[in-house]
Amino acid sequence: MLERSIDDARKALQTQPFSNLLKAEVVHYASDGVELRVPLTENLKQQHGFAHGGVISYLADNALTFAGGAALGPAVVTSEYKINYVRPAVGDFLSARAVVVYAGKTQAVCRCEVYAITDQGEKLCAAAQGTIALMR
Amino acid sequence: MLERSIDDARKALQTQPFSNLLKAEVVHYASDGVELRVPLTENLKQQHGFAHGGVISYLADNALTFAGGAALGPAVVTSEYKINYVRPAVGDFLSARAVVVYAGKTQAVCRCEVYAITDQGEKLCAAAQGTIALMR
Amino acid sequence: MLERSIDDARKALQTQPFSNLLKAEVVHYASDGVELRVPLTENLKQQHGFAHGGVISYLADNALTFAGGAALGPAVVTSEYKINYVRPAVGDFLSARAVVVYAGKTQAVCRCEVYAITDQGEKLCAAAQGTIALMR
Amino acid sequence: MLERSIDDARKALQTQPFSNLLKAEVVHYASDGVELRVPLTENLKQQHGFAHGGVISYLADNALTFAGGAALGPAVVTSEYKINYVRPAVGDFLSARAVVVYAGKTQAVCRCEVYAITDQGEKLCAAAQGTIALMR
Repeated sequence: MLERSIDDARKALQTQPFSNLLKAEVVHYASDGVELRVPLTENLKQQHGFAHGGVISYLADNALTFAGGAALGPAVVTSEYKINYVRPAVGDFLSARAVVVYAGKTQAVCRCEVYAITDQGEKLCAAAQGTIALMR
Repeated sequence: MLERSIDDARKALQTQPFSNLLKAEVVHYASDGVELRVPLTENLKQQHGFAHGGVISYLADNALTFAGGAALGPAVVTSEYKINYVRPAVGDFLSARAVVVYAGKTQAVCRCEVYAITDQGEKLCAAAQGTIALMR
Repeated sequence: MLERSIDDARKALQTQPFSNLLKAEVVHYASDGVELRVPLTENLKQQHGFAHGGVISYLADNALTFAGGAALGPAVVTSEYKINYVRPAVGDFLSARAVVVYAGKTQAVCRCEVYAITDQGEKLCAAAQGTIALMR
Repeated sequence: MLERSIDDARKALQTQPFSNLLKAEVVHYASDGVELRVPLTENLKQQHGFAHGGVISYLADNALTFAGGAALGPAVVTSEYKINYVRPAVGDFLSARAVVVYAGKTQAVCRCEVYAITDQGEKLCAAAQGTIALMR
C-alpha cells in the first residue's frame, strides 16, 4: 500500500528549499505513519527561546502531507489543517508523527502530534488534523 | 484600544529569530487589523516553485497573533488555528492580513487572509481562523 | 453565478428532516451570501439555558453548505469546518450568515458567523470556516 | 483523576434539552475516554437519507466536552473544534468516542471519532479535534 520508500520520501523532502533551510529530515516512513524531525536551532525560535509556532506548524503540515502521500501517492498537497499548541516547545529536536485516519481515492484525513525532544525524553507540544488531497 | 504602536510591533517581530530568518515585516498595525509580509525568496519555496505551505502557515499564525495582541496586549500566544490553502502561492511577496472577530478579556478570535503579491496584483492563497490567548 | 433561487434553496432545506426538526429557515440567499435562521426554542438549549453548541454547529455547517452551493451548484456537502464559540447564545433566534471566500470548480472555502438575536439587537456567538465540495 | 461517575455524566447529559431531543446517551465514561450515542432515527437525517452533518457535529462536540470534563471537572464548555466528515453516515446508531490528548489546569485538547453502527459493524464517518475550557 505504501506509495514509495523512505529513500524516495527523503529525496522528495530534499527538493523543498524551505525544508532544507529548516534542516528537516524524514526519520520514519511506513504504512503505520511517518515521522519528520527538525533540529531546534536558535534561528527557529521566537522571542522567549521556544520553537516558533511557525516551525511547529511547518513540521505538522509537512508530516500530514507525507502521511497522506504514503496512502495516496507522492503527488499530494495539504488542503487544510488545524493545529492546537499545547505547550511551549523547548528541546534539541522537534518531531512530528503523523498517521492516516481515513484515506479515500483522492483525499486523506490525517492527524499529527509534534513533540519537543531532549536527552531526558519528549513532551507533546502540538496536535494537528487536516486534509491531504491528490494534486489535479 | 490599540495596545502598542507599529514601531513597538516591529521591534517585537525583530526579537523573533525565526521571523528574521524569513525576513518578515510588519507593514500595517492599527485597530482595524494588521498586515505582515515576507519576500518570497527561493529558500522559502517547495519543490514546485510555490511558497512552501509552512511559510504561509508561519505568516498566517504570526499575523493572527499580532492582531490578537493589538486587542489583548502584547503578551499573547496563538492557542490554535486552522488554515485553508486555496491556491498555489506565486509572487514577489506574501502578505497576511488579520483582523479581530471577537475579543474578550483573555482571548480573541481572529481571522487572516494570505495573499501572493506581484506587480500585476494580488491573489488570495490561504484563509485562516484561530484563537489568541493572553500568556499566563 | 447563483446556482438556484431562494425558493429552490428553501425547498432544498425542507427536504432535510433534521432541518425541519429544528425549524430552520433560509432568510437570505444571494450572490453576496446566505442566511439561515432557527427559532431558539427550549428544546434546542443546554443545561444553562443557552443554545446548545450542537444547534449552533448545525446552523453554521448548514449555512456554509448553502453558501458553497450558491457558488458550486446544489449538489454539495460540507467536507470539513472549524468553529469558535465566542459567547453563550441567548435570544429569540439564531442567525447564521455565510459567504464564499474562494470558489474553485469542485471546492469552495466559506466563512460563517452565528448571531443570537433579540428585540434589542444581535450578538455574535460563533465564527466558522470550512470547505464545501461538489458531491461526486 | 476522573471528575465524576458515569451516572453523574448521564444525569448531566439529561439536563440538556437538545441532547434529550436527539435521545443521546452516555455509554462509556472512564479515564480512557468517553462514548456518546444517538439512535439514527429518520428525523436526524438529511435529504439523502444519511445522518445530517449537524447531528454528527452535535455528537462530536458533546463527546469532546464530556472527555474534557472527565479531565478538568464537569463545569466545562467546548471553546472550538474542527471536524472532518469522511463518509456518509448510514446505520442504526451514531457513536462518538473522545479522548484527551492534553489536559492543563484550565483547558484540554481532545479528539473524537464518530462511527455509524449497524448489525454488520461500524464505519468511521467523522474525526474531530478541539479545545475544552473550564467555565469562568
